[in-house]
Parts: sequence; C-alpha cells; structure tokens
Amino acid sequence: MTYCVAMKLDAGLVLASDSRTNAGVDHISRFEKMRVFAAPGNRVIVTLSAGNLSVTQNTLNLLDRRIQENSAAHLMTVASMVDAAGLIGDTMREVRQRDADYLRQNNVDASATFIVGGQIAGEAPRLFLVYTEGNFIEASNDTPYFQSGEIKYGKPVIDRVLRSDLSIEDAVKLTLVSFDSTMRSNVSVGLPIDLLAYRADSLAVTMERRLDADDEYLREVGRRWNEGLKQAFAAVPYPDWLVPGAD
Amino acid sequence: MTYCVAMKLDAGLVLASDSRTNAGVDHISRFEKMRVFAAPGNRVIVTLSAGNLSVTQNTLNLLDRRIQENSAAHLMTVASMVDAAGLIGDTMREVRQRDADYLRQNNVDASATFIVGGQIAGEAPRLFLVYTEGNFIEASNDTPYFQSGEIKYGKPVIDRVLRSDLSIEDAVKLTLVSFDSTMRSNVSVGLPIDLLAYRADSLAVTMERRLDADDEYLREVGRRWNEGLKQAFAAVPYPDWLVPGAD
Repeated sequence: MTYCVAMKLDAGLVLASDSRTNAGVDHISRFEKMRVFAAPGNRVIVTLSAGNLSVTQNTLNLLDRRIQENSAAHLMTVASMVDAAGLIGDTMREVRQRDADYLRQNNVDASATFIVGGQIAGEAPRLFLVYTEGNFIEASNDTPYFQSGEIKYGKPVIDRVLRSDLSIEDAVKLTLVSFDSTMRSNVSVGLPIDLLAYRADSLAVTMERRLDADDEYLREVGRRWNEGLKQAFAAVPYPDWLVPGAD
Repeated sequence: MTYCVAMKLDAGLVLASDSRTNAGVDHISRFEKMRVFAAPGNRVIVTLSAGNLSVTQNTLNLLDRRIQENSAAHLMTVASMVDAAGLIGDTMREVRQRDADYLRQNNVDASATFIVGGQIAGEAPRLFLVYTEGNFIEASNDTPYFQSGEIKYGKPVIDRVLRSDLSIEDAVKLTLVSFDSTMRSNVSVGLPIDLLAYRADSLAVTMERRLDADDEYLREVGRRWNEGLKQAFAAVPYPDWLVPGAD
C-alpha cells in the first residue's frame, strides 16, 4: 500500500509519501514515490505516485525521456502547472494504452494516480490530482489538500486542523501526525517517509528530508500525539445519563 | 453507508450503529441496524447489520419467524453465543442462496455482515463478526472490538484507547468519539446513532439510547474532542530541522 499527502498553503506546499510497495506478501520492496523536477529560479514540480508501480514508473520514464530529448512539450518547459498536470495525465494515458489490456487479462489492477504540486515562475503555487484516466482536478482553498493510497486513517486529523493559512512548519507537523495515524492502523504503509516543503515564490526546494524508523523527531511526534489524544479523550465528559457508578 | 462498532470489555459490551441506508443518491433512508433479542435473566443477544439491506432484513425476518414458530434451533433457545453466531451465518446463507444470483445479474452487491454480541446464562459475554459467507470469528482480548461499514476514519482512536479493562462509561465515550470522527469525514454515515450498553452478568440491557442531531451530549463530545485534538496537535513540537522563522 501507499500513503501520499500534499497540502497547499498560502505559505507554500508540503508533500510527503511513504516508500513501501507491496507486490504480494513475500515481496515487499521500497521504491521512491516522490519525484522532483526543479530548475531553481524557474520551477519546482513535485510528483507523488500511487497505484500500479509499472504504470507510474513508466510514466515517469517517459516524462524523463522527453526532457532528455527536449521534445515539443516536457515538464521543464511547460508554461503552467495546469500544463504539467495535463502532460502527466497524457503520458499516463500512453502507458496505460500500451499495457492496460495485458494487465487486465491477468486481473492486475492497472490504476494509478499522481499528485502534482509546485510552482512555475509567473504563477502562484498550485496543487493537482491526476486520476488514473488522465483527467485531473485542482485543490481549492476549501479543501487545500490531496491524499492518495491508504487515505482514510490519516484523514480525520487533516480535516480538523488544515487551513490555508497554516504555516509550513504546522503543515509538516500535521503531515507527520497524519502518517503516524495511518501507519499505526495499517502496517502495509511503511517507513521511510519522503518529505518536502516548498516556500511560495522561492522557486527552489526549501526542505527535503527522508525520515526512517530511527528518526528522533518522528518518534517524538508519535509519542506526543498519542499522549495528547489520550488527554483529549480523558477531557471528554461522561454523559449524565451514564455516570460511572451512578446506576 | 453504514458505521457499526462493538467493544467487548471485562465489564461488558458496548454496541452502536448509525441508521443511514443509502440506496442511491435520491433515496437515502433510515433503517434500524441494531436488533436486540433478550429474555431477562437468561440472555441478551444484539445484532448490528451492515451491507445489502434486503439480505440483512430477510435474515432477521427468518430469525424472527423461527422464534415465533419455535423451530428446532432459534436465537431464544441456542445454548451458546457461538451457536447464535452460527445460526445467524446459516440463516444469511439461506437468504443469499435464494437471492444472490438474481442480484449478481444486475451487478448488485449482495454482501452483508453481522456483528453479534451478548451473553447467554452459563457463559461470559462474547462478541462475534459473521462474514457475508456465513463463517464467523470471535473478538480476542488483544483486539476486543469489531467494526463494519465505513470503518477506517473511526479506527485510529479506537486502536489507541481501547483496552479490555476500560469501563463501560469510557467505552461509550470512545464509541461516540469514533462516530464523531467518522461522520466528520464521511457525510453518508448519518444520525441518529443507536447505542446499547450491556453490563456483564446482568442478563438484561443496561442502557439503550438513540442519539440524534440535537442530542446535547453528542454535540459536547464533538466540541470537546475537536478542542482536545487541536491542543494535542499544538503540543507536538516542531522539528529542530525546521523551526518557524529560523531559516
């Protein structure tokens, strides 16, 4: 399984992915799910991939090749993040057109999604979700985040805390708390976590970090969040129709 | 969608279900998902149903009819909760044998599950989950709860707080906090909530209550839990590699 989450803030973007790929129980491997396409001063484009690994890897391979070959349209030349999302969708359509029928014959799920966030000089930071069909949507101020993969366990805390005016620092905390909840309830989402922060208008990666099992801070987040939740639970009053010992 | 949860404690059982049934967007109705079969002093058996409504209702109808007809085996005479779970599984198999092929022809999902908790005189309280195939499992002390339906949003808090030695009162709080998280992240899980508490060896329903949208306590749980989560989040420290304003 996979868990990816990306948040769009007034202050910039925070993106993170786990790195566990599960191709059957006896073959759990790690592959990077986060890719960065950056030209400092001009653009930072980050992709988080989820779903069928051959589909997402081949999509990225094609995107890379078109940069190397300096094709008519590629990620380092597109003029807008909308075009970047569209290009990723189109490229995934190519890969799926080639492979999907063969995968279906063996009942292999060929679906995949990309979360695409970043900024290109001349426009504000933007965040998109590219569906398996190649179409895409953009994050709004009302719901300024996207998740992919095993999304539900880590969603409630984001729904409660995330607002566009959160700082990058708070969004990093929130991202790791959301991962902590997900990994606690689903063992197939695994460390390390790839984490990237992008400060609006910097046009360069602000912070990029890989957090693994012995990361001091990640463990501290887990400990403090667990304590805090237990305190929050203890602070919820009992109903007056069911007071301990009063029946 | 549905959300049902049942917890087995040293002190007894707490069971709850929402009451929203979604048969297409233009036809959202409420049906009771909780049923109680009780003979004070002898047995309390509670079922929480999830999945295809015609399958669960017809299973309950057959179980009722066999009580009325005083058949060879029915829920008011079985000697053990294991037999109760087995009987519910067998009865669901009858219903699915009759209807499932017709449902499949129209791609209707005929799957359904029952959570079955209670106590029969002569044994301790027990809790089972009956799968759509009619087989079943029993809750253990390590994982003393079952959920069905839209389970993921409300699972992390249960995983953190629930232990067998929790009081009935704390389990009621935990149940409602878990519902609050679920309803906040999924609008198709809806009020009212049917809630039942059973104190071990009482052989009678200890507390049964329907909580709807204007329930004072339910709103207080939502408010306090939300506040508590925000405090818990604020108490998580920032990483020293990303201190606000320090870059």
